Amino acid sequence: MQKQFMQRAIELAREGMDAGAGGPFGSVVVKDGEIIAEGYNGVTSNNDPTAHAEVMAIRAACQKLGTFQLDDCEIYTSCEPCPMCLGAIYWARPKAVYYACTREDAAAIDFDDQLIYDEIDAGIDNRQIPFKQIQRAEALTVFKAWQDKTDKIEY
Amino acid sequence: MQKQFMQRAIELAREGMDAGAGGPFGSVVVKDGEIIAEGYNGVTSNNDPTAHAEVMAIRAACQKLGTFQLDDCEIYTSCEPCPMCLGAIYWARPKAVYYACTREDAAAIDFDDQLIYDEIDAGIDNRQIPFKQIQRAEALTVFKAWQDKTDKIEY
Repeated sequence: MQKQFMQRAIELAREGMDAGAGGPFGSVVVKDGEIIAEGYNGVTSNNDPTAHAEVMAIRAACQKLGTFQLDDCEIYTSCEPCPMCLGAIYWARPKAVYYACTREDAAAIDFDDQLIYDEIDAGIDNRQIPFKQIQRAEALTVFKAWQDKTDKIEY
Repeated sequence: MQKQFMQRAIELAREGMDAGAGGPFGSVVVKDGEIIAEGYNGVTSNNDPTAHAEVMAIRAACQKLGTFQLDDCEIYTSCEPCPMCLGAIYWARPKAVYYACTREDAAAIDFDDQLIYDEIDAGIDNRQIPFKQIQRAEALTVFKAWQDKTDKIEY
């Protein structure tokens, strides 16, 4: 079954590439032994830098399940997730991730995540894109209001 | 101007929270001294774990501009971006990011990104969510096809 699910993720990578949707990456979400959602990279065709295969599949799976968490699901992706997708996976909380190509394989075809890993490690005051802090006190009042909110849905 | 833009991001954080859209986070994208897109967290209302304020604002800005890159734009966010949003920001490539609250402020109201940072650092073979590699050889054939593709749009 695992091979079959990954085979579909790989097929999606090729389908998306051939359709001109974006880069050569595909992903599926599996629950109870069935594919419940699929995705391929649509960055350039959707004008959406977040439209990576895993994000697309996670979003589709959550729509289908009517939930914002993917408990008891597995994610299959044709390539090791980039840091953005890794973050999305941790917010979605599937029980396992299967991947095929590595980040090094992706870098070899000019999809290089290493800058992002380096920038995460560099810390917020030492990044190539400057990060500047302003107005923390004002923003903290909203966090305080969240703490006091009685009808909030936590996630 | 910077204060005004951040003030709007903070307002959006409150609006989204008050509307029951999701957590208390807001963001705007600025180009040429004007807000071109806004976003607030919609994770729980949209059933979308990727619907963080920055992702929403980036996606809206790219739709408005008809592009998958935010060159010459600034992103204002009411809180330091999580690793997913940091990744989204690096794929979008704005020229600067302004933030208000810190990741520690977010953790204090139970939005803790530290697990994700730790899991990135842990490496792919040592994560709480197991990552398993299968079928690399099959997936590499699609990467090879991408390399050979003559009409691809790189990003």
